[in-house]
Amino acid sequence: MNDISASPLVGIIMGSQSDWPTMEHASRFLSQFEVPHECRVVSAHRTPDAMFEYAKSAASRGIQVIIAGAGGAAHLPGMVASQTTLPVLGVPVKSRALSGLDSLLSIVQMPGGIPVGTLAIGEAGAKNAGLLACRILALSDADLKEKLEAFQKKQTETIAADSHIENASWEEA
Amino acid sequence: MNDISASPLVGIIMGSQSDWPTMEHASRFLSQFEVPHECRVVSAHRTPDAMFEYAKSAASRGIQVIIAGAGGAAHLPGMVASQTTLPVLGVPVKSRALSGLDSLLSIVQMPGGIPVGTLAIGEAGAKNAGLLACRILALSDADLKEKLEAFQKKQTETIAADSHIENASWEEA
Amino acid sequence: MNDISASPLVGIIMGSQSDWPTMEHASRFLSQFEVPHECRVVSAHRTPDAMFEYAKSAASRGIQVIIAGAGGAAHLPGMVASQTTLPVLGVPVKSRALSGLDSLLSIVQMPGGIPVGTLAIGEAGAKNAGLLACRILALSDADLKEKLEAFQKKQTETIAADSHIENASWEEA
Amino acid sequence: MNDISASPLVGIIMGSQSDWPTMEHASRFLSQFEVPHECRVVSAHRTPDAMFEYAKSAASRGIQVIIAGAGGAAHLPGMVASQTTLPVLGVPVKSRALSGLDSLLSIVQMPGGIPVGTLAIGEAGAKNAGLLACRILALSDADLKEKLEAFQKKQTETIAADSHIENASWEEA
Amino acid sequence: MNDISASPLVGIIMGSQSDWPTMEHASRFLSQFEVPHECRVVSAHRTPDAMFEYAKSAASRGIQVIIAGAGGAAHLPGMVASQTTLPVLGVPVKSRALSGLDSLLSIVQMPGGIPVGTLAIGEAGAKNAGLLACRILALSDADLKEKLEAFQKKQTETIAADSHIENASWEEA
Amino acid sequence: MNDISASPLVGIIMGSQSDWPTMEHASRFLSQFEVPHECRVVSAHRTPDAMFEYAKSAASRGIQVIIAGAGGAAHLPGMVASQTTLPVLGVPVKSRALSGLDSLLSIVQMPGGIPVGTLAIGEAGAKNAGLLACRILALSDADLKEKLEAFQKKQTETIAADSHIENASWEEA
Amino acid sequence: MNDISASPLVGIIMGSQSDWPTMEHASRFLSQFEVPHECRVVSAHRTPDAMFEYAKSAASRGIQVIIAGAGGAAHLPGMVASQTTLPVLGVPVKSRALSGLDSLLSIVQMPGGIPVGTLAIGEAGAKNAGLLACRILALSDADLKEKLEAFQKKQTETIAADSHIENASWEEA
Amino acid sequence: MNDISASPLVGIIMGSQSDWPTMEHASRFLSQFEVPHECRVVSAHRTPDAMFEYAKSAASRGIQVIIAGAGGAAHLPGMVASQTTLPVLGVPVKSRALSGLDSLLSIVQMPGGIPVGTLAIGEAGAKNAGLLACRILALSDADLKEKLEAFQKKQTETIAADSHIENASWEEA
Repeated sequence: MNDISASPLVGIIMGSQSDWPTMEHASRFLSQFEVPHECRVVSAHRTPDAMFEYAKSAASRGIQVIIAGAGGAAHLPGMVASQTTLPVLGVPVKSRALSGLDSLLSIVQMPGGIPVGTLAIGEAGAKNAGLLACRILALSDADLKEKLEAFQKKQTETIAADSHIENASWEEA
Repeated sequence: MNDISASPLVGIIMGSQSDWPTMEHASRFLSQFEVPHECRVVSAHRTPDAMFEYAKSAASRGIQVIIAGAGGAAHLPGMVASQTTLPVLGVPVKSRALSGLDSLLSIVQMPGGIPVGTLAIGEAGAKNAGLLACRILALSDADLKEKLEAFQKKQTETIAADSHIENASWEEA
Repeated sequence: MNDISASPLVGIIMGSQSDWPTMEHASRFLSQFEVPHECRVVSAHRTPDAMFEYAKSAASRGIQVIIAGAGGAAHLPGMVASQTTLPVLGVPVKSRALSGLDSLLSIVQMPGGIPVGTLAIGEAGAKNAGLLACRILALSDADLKEKLEAFQKKQTETIAADSHIENASWEEA
Repeated sequence: MNDISASPLVGIIMGSQSDWPTMEHASRFLSQFEVPHECRVVSAHRTPDAMFEYAKSAASRGIQVIIAGAGGAAHLPGMVASQTTLPVLGVPVKSRALSGLDSLLSIVQMPGGIPVGTLAIGEAGAKNAGLLACRILALSDADLKEKLEAFQKKQTETIAADSHIENASWEEA
Repeated sequence: MNDISASPLVGIIMGSQSDWPTMEHASRFLSQFEVPHECRVVSAHRTPDAMFEYAKSAASRGIQVIIAGAGGAAHLPGMVASQTTLPVLGVPVKSRALSGLDSLLSIVQMPGGIPVGTLAIGEAGAKNAGLLACRILALSDADLKEKLEAFQKKQTETIAADSHIENASWEEA
Repeated sequence: MNDISASPLVGIIMGSQSDWPTMEHASRFLSQFEVPHECRVVSAHRTPDAMFEYAKSAASRGIQVIIAGAGGAAHLPGMVASQTTLPVLGVPVKSRALSGLDSLLSIVQMPGGIPVGTLAIGEAGAKNAGLLACRILALSDADLKEKLEAFQKKQTETIAADSHIENASWEEA
Repeated sequence: MNDISASPLVGIIMGSQSDWPTMEHASRFLSQFEVPHECRVVSAHRTPDAMFEYAKSAASRGIQVIIAGAGGAAHLPGMVASQTTLPVLGVPVKSRALSGLDSLLSIVQMPGGIPVGTLAIGEAGAKNAGLLACRILALSDADLKEKLEAFQKKQTETIAADSHIENASWEEA
Repeated sequence: MNDISASPLVGIIMGSQSDWPTMEHASRFLSQFEVPHECRVVSAHRTPDAMFEYAKSAASRGIQVIIAGAGGAAHLPGMVASQTTLPVLGVPVKSRALSGLDSLLSIVQMPGGIPVGTLAIGEAGAKNAGLLACRILALSDADLKEKLEAFQKKQTETIAADSHIENASWEEA
């Protein structure tokens, strides 16, 4: 079970089980920050009615941000965004032939009136979707805001501490 | 009125009025072949319920082929295809920034299980969507089949008659 | 033998034996729906006369839809479409250097007057070509239409039943 | 003056005055929804210190969402996102040579840890950035949420009322 | 009349009259070098039989090089190359939506066994096709070889003489 | 030794030893047709003087066609073409990051006045460069012409004999 | 005359007179900083010997940095870099069909051993080539270094002073 | 330790430890030429203050050239260039989804006023950044200039000696 016990604030949805290895990085991030969330497979194309039902009811169930991942002709994020006034974040999943360029353009190039905040292709994008959801939630959650600040500070420190390049093994050769 | 008097066999839909200068080429072609059809603006993103209603009821209204045109993150053809078992043809409308490459990939790269027969970007694609619809309808309409054969023959003859290049005005210079 | 006993309604052709691992997904789909079909290697470039013969005689042999797959400078679908009035569906096979982008553009960007209904690059496209052929045939085959509706319903149910994400193994770590 | 009287909740920044014709569409949208906001030219490359100052102080000044637009090697959105924990939305401005594809990739392909919610290239993206900011603010502003619902409903109705294609002038020819 | 009086040695063919403004640059070049040639519209898709007839009979009519120009899903050069053992040169004509990238890939990415020597997109490519045809013919035509050497020398001299930049009008400002 | 005993008619050059696995397919083809040829590493960037020397002296040594392969910013074919009036054929070698798209554009997009007949990216292109060289040489070599016709006929027959798809093993499952 | 009176320290070369409207932005910048420089048309393809002569003699004539601009299959910067040990900066000129993407890849994707420091496509790239040349020269010219620091400071101040968006005329409507 | 004992003249920085396998090729080259240099992880996004500190203090510490490598939305080179007047060289690191095309465009497409001399994607680019840094330093270091000339000469000789293709093993088959 990905959902943690409290009522979920973030809904992570994806077009297919095969998107999970990418999308789990959004879930991991939210778990790390103890943000209650749920994870569902909801396909724009294969379960369109369930998708609309999900989108239309999300706000009333307490969901505040929807993260939607999909690949190829990726319609899930945009279609969900058309059925809710919640902020929707889109994650382009890397596709087999075109490496996610099709996923990216299908998600980000939305017409005026239906916004999808799009993140990078693949795992980094999924992680960042989780993080952006936290930033949104932190606007009205001081605890979460503190955690984010601590995270950002630690991120800086880790890199700073690690800034010296060590593995210059070639120099010995 | 685009619809001709008989009950429409082809439904031409598009995401926005601004797609009409492209999509009218599908309508023109069908009119030329006297195929009853209707033209509607049905937006995947702005009128999602109307789109689903359209897709779900098309077959029972006698529609046999749906032609859907859209630009940018073009979700209309794929979403309609998910709500009907009729053949759906997609026309990528040329977009402002990316010249329709985004429209093309958003329409053609559908996942297995939801097919959209995609035509070329822009006017040529719209015309060919009309023609492909005719080819499908002609499978059970001998008159239409004859017209298509005559069209194809005439297309050949026109080019053949015109095969000699005349306007070599530069040679005089 | 791919052909099933009845006279074939769909012709699956491809430019080379090496396209078969992609194109077999069209054949599988048609077999699953018990649609009689044939599979042939017919190369636009290496057997152009055989290709034209195939295209010109297909309708008289009872073929109703032609599915053509090819990669790289993929000319087969368009060339076949120029020699028949049957609906032709094109499948871009993934190419070695450019991952099928060349195949896609070579198939889909046809000029006005010669339509090819193009599907996605690779296996998903081949499967969808089989499915789109079924949708076309189902216009005059009530049994097939029922099967398609059952397929679409089952596709929805499978995903719905599977919508909960289970393999969240990382959470234990 | 773009800023409306109340303390601004949204900061719209852009790399150059020449981005304003694009970015004003974000400002227009926010004004239409009566969301206090400010508009500034803050260049990642030409005024890096001012940019960091802006990013670091935005939250304490009451800004809740930052919208950043830039073109070409567009570093502004990502750099701002690295100096704040506020949600940052990125708008790729159409560039001269590559039509905004460079802007898009420079903004959206952020590494894990620094999220930018990216919108479409150009005006539609700017408008949608304004709208997505409203969706975020509406999570804790019931009035704004109602306005968004009314907007979405009206958007649907306008298209629905306009769904019939009228300008079929070619039919007369 | 483009054909000059002697029996043509080069055949310039193109898919449509609209390709002439590009392809005339091949003809101009050949005329400048007094190489007898003919110009024809021969469409792979609209006059496939005429195209095959052209390709199959070209050698016996004395044609030594075929120059074929086409745009979009450009099949003409490759199809002609499959029906002759003459060298075939391909010119990608700039297309409306994708600026000739589709034309280029459709022409150059030929499978092993059917070569098309491809030149640049547009006018420069057409001119160079004429020049490359001359280089081929010059292998057995000493006069033509001399002319080519003179042309190359003059091309060098013209640039050399013109190497100083004059129009630096901005310096006065 | 790749060179066969007679004085070479075709020069195959490449920018680096690492291009040989691609370019050997040109050499194989020429050997199969018993066309005397030589293979050399001649780098536009690392041995520019040797390259110019090669290009300038090739014709006087009896070379009739030059085949040049290179990858990335591939300057070899174009630079050689600027120093000879022999026909030059270019083979874009697949590059590591961009899969040969950079190689292709660097070779094919030559300015007017300096033609390079460009083949497909990678092995198929190298093979076809060998074949196109044969087509050029066959214009004045009746034996070679006969061999090419036999090759083309056999190529057709092989495919025709193999046109039936056999390995439909999945059907048994 | 672009050259200013002192012996030139920077050589600006370009493949064709038609590149001057782009490349003059490099010259303007150098003039503004009073850096003596020369501007020449030197074509890799049309005047290869002059190009090599230029590259080989530049250092001995006192040139310290070479700026080379070219479009399409842009070989000039890389070829010059192979004939000198001076730093060479490349400017991709916007091309007609592919908007400079071909120019960029032809210049930047150099093999290991021959470096070209590449700037942006078009005017901005030309200006920045001038500026980067100044940065290089300033390493041993304290006056120039001061000018660059003043320029950078002024650039920051100009933007800072101009950071308030004024032309919000739409707000009045 | 990569740094050699003398005070460093070149600073190699990169956005992440994972960029080291690419960037070490710059360091190797500098070591081979005995140029004192340092290697640091300095992230534009994760350690922005450290990055600015690095950029602002580099010149006063004696650094003369900065080499910056980054992948994806690669902001490091451009941001560093905005905080120094030293020449900055950018190396696009190959990215997972888009193979470094995003890295390249994010680095090279800088606006006028902030130059980054960009090298090729990946290892070749890193090596060439090291080499270009040497070319810049050699303007005021006669010893280094000699070494570069020797390197260039040896590079030519190595290829020249190796110009004969040996491994034609297929010929025996």
